[in-house]
Amino acid sequence: MAKPQKTAIEPTRAADFPEWYQQVIRGADLAENSETRGCMVIKPWGYGIWELIQQQLDARFKATGHQNAYFPMLIPLSHLEKEAGHAEGFATECAVVTHHRLEAEKQDDGSVKMIPTGKLTEPYVIRPTSETIIGSAFSRWVESYRDLPLLINQWANVMRWEMRPRLFLRTAEFLWQEGHTAHETQEEAKQEASTIHELYEEFLRDHLAIPVIAGEKTEAERFPGADATLTVEAMVQDKKAIQAGTSHYLGTNFSEAQDISFTGRDGNKQFAHTTSWGVSTRLIGTLIMAHSDDDGLILPPRVAPYQIIIVPVTPKEDSRDAIIDACQALAAVLRRDLSYDGTPLRVHVDTRDTGGGAKKWEWVKKGAPIRIEIGPRDLESSKVCLQRRDEGPMEKHFIPKEDFIRNAAETLQEIHNNLLARATELRDGNINGSESLEHFESHWENEDPGWLLTPWAGSREEEEELSKKHKITVRCMPLDKQSEEALPCILTGNLTTKRALWGRSY
Amino acid sequence: MAKPQKTAIEPTRAADFPEWYQQVIRGADLAENSETRGCMVIKPWGYGIWELIQQQLDARFKATGHQNAYFPMLIPLSHLEKEAGHAEGFATECAVVTHHRLEAEKQDDGSVKMIPTGKLTEPYVIRPTSETIIGSAFSRWVESYRDLPLLINQWANVMRWEMRPRLFLRTAEFLWQEGHTAHETQEEAKQEASTIHELYEEFLRDHLAIPVIAGEKTEAERFPGADATLTVEAMVQDKKAIQAGTSHYLGTNFSEAQDISFTGRDGNKQFAHTTSWGVSTRLIGTLIMAHSDDDGLILPPRVAPYQIIIVPVTPKEDSRDAIIDACQALAAVLRRDLSYDGTPLRVHVDTRDTGGGAKKWEWVKKGAPIRIEIGPRDLESSKVCLQRRDEGPMEKHFIPKEDFIRNAAETLQEIHNNLLARATELRDGNINGSESLEHFESHWENEDPGWLLTPWAGSREEEEELSKKHKITVRCMPLDKQSEEALPCILTGNLTTKRALWGRSY
Repeated sequence: MAKPQKTAIEPTRAADFPEWYQQVIRGADLAENSETRGCMVIKPWGYGIWELIQQQLDARFKATGHQNAYFPMLIPLSHLEKEAGHAEGFATECAVVTHHRLEAEKQDDGSVKMIPTGKLTEPYVIRPTSETIIGSAFSRWVESYRDLPLLINQWANVMRWEMRPRLFLRTAEFLWQEGHTAHETQEEAKQEASTIHELYEEFLRDHLAIPVIAGEKTEAERFPGADATLTVEAMVQDKKAIQAGTSHYLGTNFSEAQDISFTGRDGNKQFAHTTSWGVSTRLIGTLIMAHSDDDGLILPPRVAPYQIIIVPVTPKEDSRDAIIDACQALAAVLRRDLSYDGTPLRVHVDTRDTGGGAKKWEWVKKGAPIRIEIGPRDLESSKVCLQRRDEGPMEKHFIPKEDFIRNAAETLQEIHNNLLARATELRDGNINGSESLEHFESHWENEDPGWLLTPWAGSREEEEELSKKHKITVRCMPLDKQSEEALPCILTGNLTTKRALWGRSY
Repeated sequence: MAKPQKTAIEPTRAADFPEWYQQVIRGADLAENSETRGCMVIKPWGYGIWELIQQQLDARFKATGHQNAYFPMLIPLSHLEKEAGHAEGFATECAVVTHHRLEAEKQDDGSVKMIPTGKLTEPYVIRPTSETIIGSAFSRWVESYRDLPLLINQWANVMRWEMRPRLFLRTAEFLWQEGHTAHETQEEAKQEASTIHELYEEFLRDHLAIPVIAGEKTEAERFPGADATLTVEAMVQDKKAIQAGTSHYLGTNFSEAQDISFTGRDGNKQFAHTTSWGVSTRLIGTLIMAHSDDDGLILPPRVAPYQIIIVPVTPKEDSRDAIIDACQALAAVLRRDLSYDGTPLRVHVDTRDTGGGAKKWEWVKKGAPIRIEIGPRDLESSKVCLQRRDEGPMEKHFIPKEDFIRNAAETLQEIHNNLLARATELRDGNINGSESLEHFESHWENEDPGWLLTPWAGSREEEEELSKKHKITVRCMPLDKQSEEALPCILTGNLTTKRALWGRSY
């Protein structure tokens, strides 16, 4: 197992942000690279975060009428080919299964060598996303308008061959949820895509303490095969963007390709309007880059596998048992009597025989929101030493134990609020307006330039050219910034009410 | 969506058990075949059962000190080759990834054809199980005896190419959990394998109402690469066996192949003793075959997505709203005030505009443990009409609503007990002893011959020959039947205290 370290993260964010990110992951023991190209091992502390994200999102999906199901991970090539734009969009990153058995060749040294055999007449790809295979099931399930809406979600692994993998943010295999729905009308399907888009925005804000910009992608950045892609864009501490979740209105593109048709109220055959939407383990990369500091990971309390760590400080043998008992008793009270976000507090007593300093720094690096120490003097005075991960690692609050218990849930919420306020300040301080091409073009020469909001009426080609030139993209057309006021487009000069948000991204 | 049917399952169990099984799945809308060879779509009602199995097992794994993690689904061939027996054991069922991209070839008709390209220098297999890839992570994580035990579980999909797939019981892709642990000593590792074996036995009994025979596999039937395989064997209604879960003591076979070594207490390098263990979506097939009847699925209450269905019976328009309100109010009370197995009751009010008969038969086929009807007369008399899925579909109990509420959790437990008692009676009535080869060999000519318990001291080859001849296998050497009394082996005549349990299986 990774050994606890007594130092802060090296390098700092300022010195080398991408390397700092890797070291935060290492220091918190979240994940590591594997021998499978571009694929990571998600270790227990990292997977614990994912389990909480899953549970909390899943409850929200079910509360909005969705049901979980599971579809094959292998997609016949002929399925993928049905929607041409979609197929071309994912072609360069598909893992292809061509054989279904191995033959063991015994070697002279007694070892075996495995040779692929049993060639398939039709190869399969491992799902990069499941529109085609789920659409094909929908075409069997939908006969009449009475069968609609169909509101399905899947928790699954997907595979997109990545040339430049980065833990959590971009891995060949990743874990995600993908919602797939079919509706009678365009209006209902668009409403569904919006509902989920808002659900994502709220989830990021209320559970991950990340304030996003919610908007629509331009045609150039849309999901392959979609009529509209809604996105939530997070700004992380080097002021780059991370696309944290997307919700697509697919029109009738997939339903026409796969015959998701039904007999309408008027007795005529119609094609369903479909949507798809997803978030992935990328959310973990996003929260790391959004909140962590030069001492390591900082976890928003709602997704912290342990929210409160209790460390017995036992310098003397004769008070040792009493202190450990007091710690266990405190944990029991917190678990039994208190809840946060509707679930009992997640409390861990760290009784390992490790030095106090190493222990402290391990939990700092793992980002536990609250650390409590109880030593001989605290025991006598019925106090605890409280340390908050959103404060400096040396700050300590000696407070009566009863006060701590009474306020524990509130303290967690304060930490959440604090993280959200910091992230909001960062975001709002680094989105600038730009109304001239000259300003716009020179802006990207700045270090960590943040994002620019501009009037935009250019074409797809013009957007792509500008993007390539400055290594930026239109992150989205922010929903709440589509102004009534017509201003000249920074490129074409044509008056437009549209606003585009540009930036660098992961 | 599948339409509700008004008839019982065709054919009956007696007429054609395998086809009855398919029709129970269809009638309950649990799953269906897909266009991906041997792979199924798990539909919401079927996936709901899996979610409950997952949650309940996961809580037990965590309570016994295990943590979840996630490992790559693609295994480099070179990894698989390291443990020769293991590699050969899975060679014939491995899906092989050989390419990592597709090229879209535009066809004359405007469609695209996708051609595999980007050939990999080293192919990957989709995990048929993860000993090799997880062992390789363990070899990085374990340095000292202080790092042990390592107690990891993974929830994942796996792929074993199946020539004769059958929904849930044998599919190319299936969902499962696989535990992988590493220990300092043989004793600890064997204890871990036993602990999980007992956990599986209890889970099947207390959650799925399935009484298993717990035992050890013979060498011929062991997991490839294991030193010992413990199994839980369920008998289903055609008296065949289903291997429902296995727990393997792997000795140091995998740790030597993959260098899971550590510095021991004596300062010397040692190899860890490892285990692995798993159950899968096969459990759903097992419970279907164990409990269902000629009217369809019967769900054990702990894994029923809805435990109680409330159906408003509204023949007259003027009492319609009052009846629906009464149903919703009853559901609210049940959800709020009652729990079963530590979780709130799962109650559904079926307010759809469907005929009462069709509705009733839909829930019969879906196996909901309790159905409640409330009609105008019940409303007046404060009674409900209670129907239990473990009783005949025509049996009705008109009881005071308050009595029903007070006893609801107990009624669910009675249904569980009843299912378990029936399954136990079936099992115990169909295991016979055999002490002569003549009796043994003629026994297998019977229809639905059940299982035979015999003194056994034969060799692996003799076991395999006998198995092949009668299309049977040794299901296990039952732990509680390894007698002190030495009896002559049915084949060799040598005196032995060992007992083997033989039978046909899925």
